[in-house]
Amino acid sequence: MKAGWQDAYLEQIESMLDRLLPIQGELYADVIAAMRYSLLNGGKRIRPVLLLEFCRLCGGSTEAALPYACALEMIHTYSLIHDDLPCMDDDGMRRGKPSCHKAFGEATALLAGDALLTLAFETAAAPENGERAGHARALSAAWELARAAGIHGMVGGQQIDLISEGRAVPLDTLELMDSCKTGALIRAAARVGCLLGGGSREQLLAAEQYAGALGLAFQIVDDILDVTGTEEELGKPVKSDAGRDKSTYVSLLGLAEARQEAARLTQKAVSALEPFGPEADNLRELAEELSVRQK
Amino acid sequence: MKAGWQDAYLEQIESMLDRLLPIQGELYADVIAAMRYSLLNGGKRIRPVLLLEFCRLCGGSTEAALPYACALEMIHTYSLIHDDLPCMDDDGMRRGKPSCHKAFGEATALLAGDALLTLAFETAAAPENGERAGHARALSAAWELARAAGIHGMVGGQQIDLISEGRAVPLDTLELMDSCKTGALIRAAARVGCLLGGGSREQLLAAEQYAGALGLAFQIVDDILDVTGTEEELGKPVKSDAGRDKSTYVSLLGLAEARQEAARLTQKAVSALEPFGPEADNLRELAEELSVRQK
Repeated sequence: MKAGWQDAYLEQIESMLDRLLPIQGELYADVIAAMRYSLLNGGKRIRPVLLLEFCRLCGGSTEAALPYACALEMIHTYSLIHDDLPCMDDDGMRRGKPSCHKAFGEATALLAGDALLTLAFETAAAPENGERAGHARALSAAWELARAAGIHGMVGGQQIDLISEGRAVPLDTLELMDSCKTGALIRAAARVGCLLGGGSREQLLAAEQYAGALGLAFQIVDDILDVTGTEEELGKPVKSDAGRDKSTYVSLLGLAEARQEAARLTQKAVSALEPFGPEADNLRELAEELSVRQK
Repeated sequence: MKAGWQDAYLEQIESMLDRLLPIQGELYADVIAAMRYSLLNGGKRIRPVLLLEFCRLCGGSTEAALPYACALEMIHTYSLIHDDLPCMDDDGMRRGKPSCHKAFGEATALLAGDALLTLAFETAAAPENGERAGHARALSAAWELARAAGIHGMVGGQQIDLISEGRAVPLDTLELMDSCKTGALIRAAARVGCLLGGGSREQLLAAEQYAGALGLAFQIVDDILDVTGTEEELGKPVKSDAGRDKSTYVSLLGLAEARQEAARLTQKAVSALEPFGPEADNLRELAEELSVRQK
C-alpha cells in the first residue's frame, strides 16, 4: 500500500533507526538484540511518516525532523513490547513473528522496552537537534513526545484498556481509551511535524484534527479487520478481541455502522487538511489508503 | 542521618515531586496511585540532592536545577518498580512496604514505571526549563539523563545483573554492572548539576569522579548491610543476595576487604572534591555519612 512519496521517507527512517540503535555491548547483547528485533520489524511507520510530511508541508527540512520521527517510532515500539507481556495482553505474535518476550524472555523484553523509551528521549534531546532545529524548538518537540506518551496520553489509555477488559464499556470510554492509547502519539506526530516545520497556529490545529480523525478511523478499521481478516493477512491471531470479551467498535456499533464511522472519520481527516491546500494530497491519499487497508 | 544542609533541598524536592505527579484521572486512577505510592515513599533522594548541591557549587540556582533533580528521582524510582517485578528480581518488599506490584498488581506496576520514566522526560524537557536555564543547556541536561538511564547506562547494568544471577562473576564484571546500573545515574546527577550551574570542565570532571567513587562505595556498603543488617533496619529482606547465588563485593572480597574498599573509595570521593575548595564540605560529609550508614 506504500505510495511512492512515502518510499523516500521510509528509506531515511529505516536507515536512521538502524544507526540509532546500539550495535555492541557484549554483556548486554540480548537486550540490544531484542531492541533491534522489535524496532526493525517492518512496521507501517505511520507516525514518523506523518511527522515528516507535516514538517515538509510547513516548510521545514526532513533532516531536522528525522530524529523526532525515529523517537516516535521507538516510543510506539516500546509500547507494543510492554503491551504484549504476559501481565498485560499476553500476546504471543506481533507482525507475523513471535512477540519480543516470546523470542527473548520476559525480563529482556521488559528491559528492551525500557531501553527503547529511553533511547527515544536520548534521540529527541540530542544536542545536535538544537543546532538544526533551534534549541527552544528542539526542547518543545521532545516535551510534546513525552506528554503524548505519558499518563494523560498513551499510558493512561493502556490503563483504561486494562480495566476495561472482560466487561462491556460504553462507546465514549472506548473512544477516550483510543484517543489516549493510540491517538495521542498520532496527534503528537502531526503536532511535532508542524512545530519543527515552523507551521502557523492554524496549520497546527488542522494537523491535529486530521491526525485525531485518522487515528480513530485507524482503530476502527483495526477492530473490523480483527473480525473480517485472516491470521495470514494480519500476521497476528484474529478474533482476539471477542476472545477477551473486549468491547470494540464492531461489538458496540455492529460491522456496518463501524464501517460507516470509519468512512466518516476518514472524510473528516481529509477535510481538515484544507489549510494546507493541494500540497497535502499525499496525506489525503494516506487517509484513504488506511481506511481500505486489508492488514 | 540527614544533615541540616540537606533539609532545605529535601523539602523542595518532596514538594515539587508531589506537584509534578498527576492527581486526577478517574479512569486511570490506579496507575496514578501506584506512581505516587512508589515515588513519594521516603527514599534517600541522594541523586537529586547531589544534583542540586553541585549546581550550587558551580554558581547555579536551585530553581533551575530542581526539575532535573525530580526527573532523576523519577527515573530511579521507575527502575526500582521494574526491577522488583516477578520477571526481574521478584522482590516483594521495598523501603519497608510491599513493592509496587504487590500493592497494585503487575500490569499497573509496569505502567506506573513506564509513566514515571516518561514523566521524567516531560519534566526535563518542559519549555519553562529553557526559560530558566537557557534552551541549549536545558536540552543538554535532558540528554544527559536519557543517556545515563539507557542501554549503555542503567538498562545495560540491569541486563548484566540479569545474566549474572545464579553464577559467580569476576570482580570487574561486578564493578562494570554497578558502574552502569547505579553508577550511571549518580554520575549523571553530578554532571547535570555542574552543567546547569555553568561549571568549568575541571569542575565537571571532579564532580564525576566524586560521584563515581561515591556510587561504588554506596553499592559495596549495600552489599555489606545485606549481610550484617536486619530486616527491620533495612526495610527489606536481608541476605537476599546469597539466597540468589549472586556475586557481591562481600562474596568476592570477604567482609573485611569489602569494608576497606568502601573506605578507600569514600576517601577517593572526598579527595576528588578539591577543585571546589571548602565550599564542598557538605559533599565530603555526605560521602562519609553514606559509608557508615546502617540502612
